[in-house]
Amino acid sequence: MRATLDFLLHDWLAVESLSERPRFADHSRETFDAVLDTCEKIAREKFAPFNRLADTQEPRFDGERVHLPQATHAALAAYAESGMLAAAQDHEIGGMQLPCVVEMAGNAFFSKASVAMSGYAMLTSGNASLLMAHGTPAQIDMFAKNEFAGRWFGTMCLSEPQAGSSLSDVATRAVPDGPGFEHDPLGPRYRLNGNKMWISGGEHDLTENIVHLVLAKIPDEDGRLAPGVKGISLFVVPKFLVGLQDGERLPKAVLLARNDVALAGLNHKLGYRGTTNTLLNFGEGRFPVRGQADTGGLDGNGAGAIGYRVGAPGEGLKCMFHMMNEARIGVGLGAVMLGYAGYEASLEYARQRPQGRTHRKPPVEGAGGSAGKDAGAPQSPIIEHADVKRMLLAQKAYVEGGLALALYCARLVDEQATGAPEASREAGTLLEMLTPIAKSWPSELCLEANSLAIQVHGGYGYTRDFPVEQYWRDNRLNMIHEGTHGIQGLDLLGRKAVMNGGAGLKLVASRIDAGIARAAQVQGLEEHAHALAGALQRLGSATKSAWATGDPVDALANATPYLQAFGHTVLAWMWLELALVARQRLAAKALQTGSPDADFLHGKLAAARYFFHYELPKTSAWLNVVQARDATCRDMQAGWF
Amino acid sequence: MRATLDFLLHDWLAVESLSERPRFADHSRETFDAVLDTCEKIAREKFAPFNRLADTQEPRFDGERVHLPQATHAALAAYAESGMLAAAQDHEIGGMQLPCVVEMAGNAFFSKASVAMSGYAMLTSGNASLLMAHGTPAQIDMFAKNEFAGRWFGTMCLSEPQAGSSLSDVATRAVPDGPGFEHDPLGPRYRLNGNKMWISGGEHDLTENIVHLVLAKIPDEDGRLAPGVKGISLFVVPKFLVGLQDGERLPKAVLLARNDVALAGLNHKLGYRGTTNTLLNFGEGRFPVRGQADTGGLDGNGAGAIGYRVGAPGEGLKCMFHMMNEARIGVGLGAVMLGYAGYEASLEYARQRPQGRTHRKPPVEGAGGSAGKDAGAPQSPIIEHADVKRMLLAQKAYVEGGLALALYCARLVDEQATGAPEASREAGTLLEMLTPIAKSWPSELCLEANSLAIQVHGGYGYTRDFPVEQYWRDNRLNMIHEGTHGIQGLDLLGRKAVMNGGAGLKLVASRIDAGIARAAQVQGLEEHAHALAGALQRLGSATKSAWATGDPVDALANATPYLQAFGHTVLAWMWLELALVARQRLAAKALQTGSPDADFLHGKLAAARYFFHYELPKTSAWLNVVQARDATCRDMQAGWF
Repeated sequence: MRATLDFLLHDWLAVESLSERPRFADHSRETFDAVLDTCEKIAREKFAPFNRLADTQEPRFDGERVHLPQATHAALAAYAESGMLAAAQDHEIGGMQLPCVVEMAGNAFFSKASVAMSGYAMLTSGNASLLMAHGTPAQIDMFAKNEFAGRWFGTMCLSEPQAGSSLSDVATRAVPDGPGFEHDPLGPRYRLNGNKMWISGGEHDLTENIVHLVLAKIPDEDGRLAPGVKGISLFVVPKFLVGLQDGERLPKAVLLARNDVALAGLNHKLGYRGTTNTLLNFGEGRFPVRGQADTGGLDGNGAGAIGYRVGAPGEGLKCMFHMMNEARIGVGLGAVMLGYAGYEASLEYARQRPQGRTHRKPPVEGAGGSAGKDAGAPQSPIIEHADVKRMLLAQKAYVEGGLALALYCARLVDEQATGAPEASREAGTLLEMLTPIAKSWPSELCLEANSLAIQVHGGYGYTRDFPVEQYWRDNRLNMIHEGTHGIQGLDLLGRKAVMNGGAGLKLVASRIDAGIARAAQVQGLEEHAHALAGALQRLGSATKSAWATGDPVDALANATPYLQAFGHTVLAWMWLELALVARQRLAAKALQTGSPDADFLHGKLAAARYFFHYELPKTSAWLNVVQARDATCRDMQAGWF
Repeated sequence: MRATLDFLLHDWLAVESLSERPRFADHSRETFDAVLDTCEKIAREKFAPFNRLADTQEPRFDGERVHLPQATHAALAAYAESGMLAAAQDHEIGGMQLPCVVEMAGNAFFSKASVAMSGYAMLTSGNASLLMAHGTPAQIDMFAKNEFAGRWFGTMCLSEPQAGSSLSDVATRAVPDGPGFEHDPLGPRYRLNGNKMWISGGEHDLTENIVHLVLAKIPDEDGRLAPGVKGISLFVVPKFLVGLQDGERLPKAVLLARNDVALAGLNHKLGYRGTTNTLLNFGEGRFPVRGQADTGGLDGNGAGAIGYRVGAPGEGLKCMFHMMNEARIGVGLGAVMLGYAGYEASLEYARQRPQGRTHRKPPVEGAGGSAGKDAGAPQSPIIEHADVKRMLLAQKAYVEGGLALALYCARLVDEQATGAPEASREAGTLLEMLTPIAKSWPSELCLEANSLAIQVHGGYGYTRDFPVEQYWRDNRLNMIHEGTHGIQGLDLLGRKAVMNGGAGLKLVASRIDAGIARAAQVQGLEEHAHALAGALQRLGSATKSAWATGDPVDALANATPYLQAFGHTVLAWMWLELALVARQRLAAKALQTGSPDADFLHGKLAAARYFFHYELPKTSAWLNVVQARDATCRDMQAGWF
């Protein structure tokens, strides 16, 4: 994978040039390489060997504590030690000021080694980054910095049992905690009551404290919660309440009383078992908070978990979604890396496993020689069978293409943050358009890659003696969390494709057109360029037709096929870009056929060819129903099933 | 499901008319219904409630015995008691002389309730049926009859660790057991040495004996095994050697010494855990057989497991594959029923789970009313969301279509066995063509149905608190066993599509054309008829083009996409047939809109529409590469990955 990562980061995305920007001025190809080397090493030594263990030794709750394997403790300690939790943060708070694209490339190694074990770190980093953007200085000092240091881990608490994808139905209440509630040094203090479901990392014994970021509604004077998402606010709710104590040099955070956040139960999952997933009860009274925190608040008896508001009232969703692009790209990258792990495992297996024999071409063409098989010959490694090559090529096209898209998007995050104003704005718009794809496409196609990895292994792939079945189970989560597949489709066709009069769609199309124009001039890529132009034209036409009546009921009934077609079109664009780079490098270096470098580049061209011949044509079937505003699904009656 | 089963068996396949044939003369709609009632009841009471248990209490080997849950014992005892093991057998050996199509319909309930628990029964029935076709009267009396009675269970031992799909590499040796070896009452006696992998039901404590049917090669005078499949013979190898003892009325089979068949290990699988899967060592010396069975044979020391040859030497594969169509249709039906179980579970969930709100059509069209959502309104059941309806419709189209194909094929088995000569021959040819589809298509698409069932459940579907994740895990096996997906593609394009100058393909096309001709006359189905005609034409053209060079290397590189396209075309035909029946019944009965009967038929028409609009167009992308003899995969070099 490292060679492909270097190809993507340097030959394609020219990431080194970011060091010309002030924020990244301390960096260079060498520092970027060093980060990747470190990540690769820790992931190989501390994560990968224990990925199966994290699956079989599922988190266990003894009524008091949730136990995780010692290997998970050791792995995350090594991760924290590496500084990756604060990789993208400012030097002044102990960060590395790494570009997002390098941070994501580094984290890719951990996702590949053990997506479930590394989940705690990704959540913590995302949680703390959100506090950096929206927290007060005191919240940053107390919570974010202790998270970046790996002393405490973090969670995101959005869903509730009765409100999964529908955040407007959040029913957790946050009531101001006494008359002086707004003067707490850690922010306006509230009491929270409610249940949060599907909370990853919601309980564990990895760190002494857990920092929950919680969406809740502040009731009006009559105690009513506003309907819809507008009434949602954001709160930081630590498992243990914290205060400051004089330290040797600086005041030091210390744990005070247990806050009223109680584990109601662990979810027992199909995969991703190394990450605890929990139902949490806030303010159920299991750990009542009285004494110094109890100011005899408005709620009469001081009941409820104590939380400190982050950002303004009613701005909770906006704050939470500030980091959404990065979070969703991260989920997509996790799906890619599971696919990558399966690809590498099945490639290795296919090279070593002898089975059957290939048909032989007649020795002299037209000479009527037999194209049969010689049953007496030794068996061939299965990588020589065309259908096995098909399954490996499909995986390669899915996982390397998915990795390219994730890194392209991460590079856009950097552009948005550090580019010139116009470039920054454009990067932001492109991110809005591409994030639903970067999240959904690998969740679906790299899951398919994992299924192909099982298939390459035959019966062995179906046993727990090989790793591929776990990758497949782990990856099935990714179409569900961080916005389901259906939600991504609605976001793309219902919001992104029509925002600002379709400006985002036009911008994406202009970037794709630029790639097409370049490829049309390169021998061997003209056909691909032509195919992509056709797909892009059909995509634009279908978008218009979907909205021709202006009625979302008509347009959105086929939002998921639209998402699939859009995704395949974007991925074809990625592969066209990679093929362009591969062709350029082959031409520039005049590499000898059969040399490792030439083989590497021919592999990229073959994967591109696979994608254009076998995958891109699928977009027609998906777009047919979008174009026609096909009513089969929306007209279906519940009673007809 | 029962209503759909009745619709398929009676409104479509007119199964009752089989009772006009001598073999089925004792049967009627009433006896068929009684069989289905019994199967449905036993499956509901004895199998379904324990399907999760059979997964979590995986078979355990204590060094002596393999233990299975008591529930599995009870379920299979009830199955045996029902007489279904011998459902299709002659009255005179205690069978029911049921048509295959009714037998399969009955077994469908068991596969849906617990595919893994019912696996033992399906294997036993298949094993004994094979002995009925190829065994000697003594072998039938001793082995087949005790299997039909449920006293002993059976297995099929084909694969070996070094020879999975490649049976020509079978290395198990069978040596004649002494000079008088051919005079054993149970058949010519051999000593077997070798290892067999992936043997389902290879060891368990469900029955007192296990009857293995084993493929092995008889060495030539120099001790060499013939290369290829021609040297393979078939042997019946019981776990315990057996003899006859005087019983009250008839001689009774009794167990003698333990035969040298040893469990080398259990395979620990992703799913299908309720069926033991084993590596068996034959003749390793763990249970040496001496004494009465040891005649000081040619092998010098009497080593090896004792086996009795079934059929002529070298005819092993022919004997084993005699029942292959039915076995593969059975695997396909198992895949369908896993899909069906997930469909029913997710349909029930979608009806009950409130989440989010649907867009509302403007109250008066064109009046400019808002199509927005009312956040204050109660949440809707998710079945009202168009994308959830899409996921349910897709499942319905896959599982009901798959069930139709399995029953259509089973009906062909009956036609081949009991039809007039010409009809019987045609049925045989159609079976050759359709069996690869009946096996592969549900393995792939009903697995996809299971994934959609998880998706409909959201996060809950990813937990082990709901059954859908197990269905998905269980179903992943079906693309692997009984001939992998790749093998099915090679069989279809490499052998079946070209046999007798393409006669089989022509016959399938003529049947499809007949359906198209009828549908073209029916209002509302003309468009489907037209679409299917186009797909069929492209399929024929791609078949010709694939073989245009006559070189299998060119043709077969895209055998899997061909299999997928052929499958979707056949399934579209099935749905056209079902839509025809539904239209006829709606017209004939003038059913009131909204009546349960009308709803049922409208559901069939909607699923057909879904298949024609969303699925059939996918065939173009698959056929493109077949038509072009696309060389991307076969030209890929191992070094390029």
